[in-house]
Amino acid sequence: MSGNCSPCASCKLLRRRCSQNCLFAPYFPANDLHKFAMVHKVFGCKNLTKMLKDVPVEKREDVVKSLVYEANARVRNPVYGCVGIISNLEIQVSELQTQLAVAQTEILTMKMQQAFTFNNGDISP
Amino acid sequence: MSGNCSPCASCKLLRRRCSQNCLFAPYFPANDLHKFAMVHKVFGCKNLTKMLKDVPVEKREDVVKSLVYEANARVRNPVYGCVGIISNLEIQVSELQTQLAVAQTEILTMKMQQAFTFNNGDISP
Repeated sequence: MSGNCSPCASCKLLRRRCSQNCLFAPYFPANDLHKFAMVHKVFGCKNLTKMLKDVPVEKREDVVKSLVYEANARVRNPVYGCVGIISNLEIQVSELQTQLAVAQTEILTMKMQQAFTFNNGDISP
Repeated sequence: MSGNCSPCASCKLLRRRCSQNCLFAPYFPANDLHKFAMVHKVFGCKNLTKMLKDVPVEKREDVVKSLVYEANARVRNPVYGCVGIISNLEIQVSELQTQLAVAQTEILTMKMQQAFTFNNGDISP
């Protein structure tokens, strides 16, 4: 329950009494209804309760943050959600690895050319 | 409902009659209870129904695949779920971009050295 006795965002949206020990209140302040609405839309109240209770109190803030991120991703992309972001990042990693391999090969080739030039006292490539 | 009239994995686990038009049956075959159990554990039946109905039929297979992936990630990592994978990939992208920038700078430096050497008819760096 928030300090000024107003119900937290979760209890406001679920139209229930916000108790002193409300599980959601520390993470869903009354002034941000959207945050809870998103998580509730994707995961539901029962699952959210279970996921919070399953981890130690000091980790719950991070659980909420990651669930908000996942819920937003699902609302933006109803087919792939977070997995769409993962796929794009995997493609980016793969492309960067290829570019890096090409660059490293170019460096190696130039170093070998340079060594050859020095050894032969020759400036031709 | 599966071809041999046995209920799909969802209806089996939810202990309900599997109808001819069961929304879940095409994606949760009777022989893979674990797949539905995972998605159900994280998203719940009501939200899964809503998420499937919100997209065209031809996209539902992909919705299920991405939800199974997300649910597995959440079960493996109850604090960060998919977001943990995204963070790791973002770190990997950032490291690769740095390595690529270093390699490209090295290539540029070597090319400038090479051009200088050619222009001066000199083999010293």
